[in-house]
Amino acid sequence: MHPLPQSPAPSPQSPACRPRLAITMGDPTGVGPEVIAAAWAEPRIQAACRPVVFGHPEILRRAVAAAGSSAGVVEVARPEDAASVSNVIACYRTGSDDARAATPCQIDARGGQAAYDALVAATDAALNHRVDGIVTAPLNKAALWQAGHHYPGHTELLAELCGVAEVAMMLYLGSAAFTFPQAPAPSPQSQPRLRGLGVVHVTLHTALRNVFGELTGAKILEKARLVDGIMTRLNGVRPTIGVCALNPHAGEEGLFGDEEQRIIAPAVAKGIAEGLPLVGPLSADTLMVRARDGEFDAVVAMYHDQGHIALKLLGMHYAVNITLGLPIVRTSVAHGTAFDLAWQGKADHRSMIEAIEVAVRLVATRPSP
Amino acid sequence: MHPLPQSPAPSPQSPACRPRLAITMGDPTGVGPEVIAAAWAEPRIQAACRPVVFGHPEILRRAVAAAGSSAGVVEVARPEDAASVSNVIACYRTGSDDARAATPCQIDARGGQAAYDALVAATDAALNHRVDGIVTAPLNKAALWQAGHHYPGHTELLAELCGVAEVAMMLYLGSAAFTFPQAPAPSPQSQPRLRGLGVVHVTLHTALRNVFGELTGAKILEKARLVDGIMTRLNGVRPTIGVCALNPHAGEEGLFGDEEQRIIAPAVAKGIAEGLPLVGPLSADTLMVRARDGEFDAVVAMYHDQGHIALKLLGMHYAVNITLGLPIVRTSVAHGTAFDLAWQGKADHRSMIEAIEVAVRLVATRPSP
Repeated sequence: MHPLPQSPAPSPQSPACRPRLAITMGDPTGVGPEVIAAAWAEPRIQAACRPVVFGHPEILRRAVAAAGSSAGVVEVARPEDAASVSNVIACYRTGSDDARAATPCQIDARGGQAAYDALVAATDAALNHRVDGIVTAPLNKAALWQAGHHYPGHTELLAELCGVAEVAMMLYLGSAAFTFPQAPAPSPQSQPRLRGLGVVHVTLHTALRNVFGELTGAKILEKARLVDGIMTRLNGVRPTIGVCALNPHAGEEGLFGDEEQRIIAPAVAKGIAEGLPLVGPLSADTLMVRARDGEFDAVVAMYHDQGHIALKLLGMHYAVNITLGLPIVRTSVAHGTAFDLAWQGKADHRSMIEAIEVAVRLVATRPSP
Repeated sequence: MHPLPQSPAPSPQSPACRPRLAITMGDPTGVGPEVIAAAWAEPRIQAACRPVVFGHPEILRRAVAAAGSSAGVVEVARPEDAASVSNVIACYRTGSDDARAATPCQIDARGGQAAYDALVAATDAALNHRVDGIVTAPLNKAALWQAGHHYPGHTELLAELCGVAEVAMMLYLGSAAFTFPQAPAPSPQSQPRLRGLGVVHVTLHTALRNVFGELTGAKILEKARLVDGIMTRLNGVRPTIGVCALNPHAGEEGLFGDEEQRIIAPAVAKGIAEGLPLVGPLSADTLMVRARDGEFDAVVAMYHDQGHIALKLLGMHYAVNITLGLPIVRTSVAHGTAFDLAWQGKADHRSMIEAIEVAVRLVATRPSP
């Protein structure tokens, strides 16, 4: 469907040593089923893991056809029966047959319920060590709410299912995002970056006006610690972390706001004192260019658009959403259900491939209990 | 010094028909003099205009050497004596000889005074029709203040010299920014944009916290009207203008803030009713990707970083700063004095070339009085 990332495939392990990953089908009205079907056909995926789709086998068969794949779909009785076979998609049935009637490309409570059921089952399988991690396809928030499940999204639902209070979302662009033929160009005299880039937000889904009340030094430090740990696992080396200012020109010495002096700079100093590899606060516009050019491996953004404007311009089709702070490995595609593209063979499956490969890496580097 | 933009050179006019442009030398401690010297050597510049540098001839001679050029510098008695000669730089002397002693790459009041003197003289020449427009090299704000001139920057000083109260800054990326070999890649299935992109800010050099008080529908409309007019002149066709939301996800139906519903959407509706080609408010992160991919010719950003994060990632080295609302044509490079690069032959002169070419275009499309 789309040209594939050029990063090297992981070296194959014997199938029995590959991690078992539950891949949730997401909302069947959106692009989830077909990006799974398309990703399944990539030999690198089967060489890296033993995937099993949590969802409905009949919808998956339709998606295989929509993605132009010739794979078969077989039901497995247990998540443990996942194998690594390119042309056979293993499906562990979740949810009810009602999902089959959900209208493609529309908000449908039956689709929301199916996405919910797949996620609950996959999380349960991960918590009970029946799979090593989960990778989620997109759900539709409105459909989820219509089905009676009132969560802002995956992340909050996962936190509840796992019984944890504090989680954070990190968006990760693997090195493939910077080295593929049409990658965003670095500045003249710079090379494309060869390591992945992580972006974590201190505040996220809240009005811009509320950022001033929500921003604290403690939250900045907490995010910096989480991103330090996860990026060390993903890249294999300790990251250099750029911390964004809140105001233009990093506050221009207090002329354009004092949050840098009152909140961010003290948090950065405290982080450095405890050994965190932080630099900042830096004017967000130049920080993002320096990150693209390889100077930073991770960015702590103060609010949603500060991180997302850069992430989307740098290549959101490669982005992976990683939930930090859960007791299980969980990654996700970074896109939504994309009703404008769904069920037409147009969806881009690179984010799904990246999400699976990042989950494999996180399983391999999981700290000992 | 750097590879040049690949856009076609303007068709040459006979020298007497080419516009006369005053190019201010800016602060002599920074990169201004050398980017002027480097740009001068480009045949396309001489084919497009009759430039004359406002500044000190001796500093210009040093800059010619720093830029590795072999051009001569000749003093002209009047700005009207500008000609189009590649290897002879015409210099109209402004300011005092003190500027010669200003320390390179450092904040120096003598440098600030020299930049001030050049700007005052060039503005005067433009107001009196002795030149057709001015192009400014960077000044250093701290040096300007040390010299006793307390302005935030060029724009405010120009407004005062021209006797106008309301001006706006637009940043413009010409089509060269999107078509040169290392240009930012468009989304898969998109083509590089072939027209320039303008970005105007409703609020700019102010604390993020103050944006909520400063943002009004009237200001949004005023900027939209200005950008509509200038982009029609620059691109030769009416622009499509994307208007940014303020909050994440454009407020998510009011869940993440109400400025979209209260302020921005009504202003957009009013603008459309009076014939402005506006679309919005749109979530800023996706709007910027759609702008890069050619869907919008101009963007109205609500605050500094919203516009600048995108602009810098898209190619600030090509950016031109245009002052809207002045009675004279004025463009500027979009970078600062860059003390880390100055006087080492490292400065990138593409922004100066673009600034000159944009000034030529603005002179050619100036509305009749």
